Amino acid sequence: MKTLIIGATGGIGGALARLWAGQGEVWLTGRRLEALSALAGELGARALPLDLGNELEVASLLEEVGPLDRLIYAAGAVVRTPLRSTPRDGLEEVLAANFLGAFFALKHARLSPGAKALFLGAYPAYVEVPGFAAYAASKQALESLLNTARKEWRREGVQLILVRLPAVDTPLWGPLGGAPRGALSPEEAARRILAGLEGGGEVLEL
Amino acid sequence: MKTLIIGATGGIGGALARLWAGQGEVWLTGRRLEALSALAGELGARALPLDLGNELEVASLLEEVGPLDRLIYAAGAVVRTPLRSTPRDGLEEVLAANFLGAFFALKHARLSPGAKALFLGAYPAYVEVPGFAAYAASKQALESLLNTARKEWRREGVQLILVRLPAVDTPLWGPLGGAPRGALSPEEAARRILAGLEGGGEVLEL
Repeated sequence: MKTLIIGATGGIGGALARLWAGQGEVWLTGRRLEALSALAGELGARALPLDLGNELEVASLLEEVGPLDRLIYAAGAVVRTPLRSTPRDGLEEVLAANFLGAFFALKHARLSPGAKALFLGAYPAYVEVPGFAAYAASKQALESLLNTARKEWRREGVQLILVRLPAVDTPLWGPLGGAPRGALSPEEAARRILAGLEGGGEVLEL
Repeated sequence: MKTLIIGATGGIGGALARLWAGQGEVWLTGRRLEALSALAGELGARALPLDLGNELEVASLLEEVGPLDRLIYAAGAVVRTPLRSTPRDGLEEVLAANFLGAFFALKHARLSPGAKALFLGAYPAYVEVPGFAAYAASKQALESLLNTARKEWRREGVQLILVRLPAVDTPLWGPLGGAPRGALSPEEAARRILAGLEGGGEVLEL
């Protein structure tokens, strides 16, 4: 069993990595090299830094990792701003982390027969709210991408899973003034995600 | 009445411009300067070339045009390719024409009270098919963007309209081997779009 967790230094990615540790060969990627190396050392996993906006980096990393049984795409970014004052770099970061990186991962991953690839989506009604135009659009683009990829690859025996999560109390909420009341802990979110991963559905609503 | 048609050199944009000609002050933008100038001359409209992927260009154009009563976003691009062989420039072009350009237009347009802005969307079930992953994702991102913008601007008295079109026989289909049988003519699509624009709904299914 070979697993790659993309975005392993984030709140949910880190919790997933801890829960998943020891289940075969585990590779972790993230942007923050120091945190990534510490986590990989602690868990006995392999660490590779990755800039998801750079397709060549994604391709080269997936070539190095080789055929995968599990791909967990836990990278994500959020910007909260009125549409009219969305900064260009915020829009680009959100698109790269939530959509383009997933596109590149699907394009270049070698998924073994029976493999499962899991991506963190959203509930449209929760995210299509003032201040979150870029975030919501990037998550809808991701969902559409998976819908199309499933049809293209329907004979390949791989499963592409979209997870819809309620709010999770991760560092992503820091610049937004903290997570909403009732947000899941990253550990609880990770437990639910992994339970869902081993279940059967294409869309998991947690 | 001041109208801006973005993407006026395309099949649908051109047909819209011809139908709309004479209804007040009309500005046309497009990538192909020669075709744009010829069309503007023929219709007595004003022409400005525009690269939609360049936010500064979009901002500067919208500043020059000033307050708008009608904004028609008819730009679009398509690439047909298996997800795994999607060229980077094709993905970027599709995202820029179908999503980022619309984002920039919404961000920078000055929409007068009572204004209507119309964007060309898609039927998800028709476009989430093998070969169209990037196109479908960009159209879903656009749809989500409009959903969020309507909520942000609910007190501004502007109307944001998404049009779902069946296939239309435009030059976009050229590199794809021609339009599907039964595709609407651009003129018929434009007639239906303009009829819908003057109706009331937020989502027009033509």
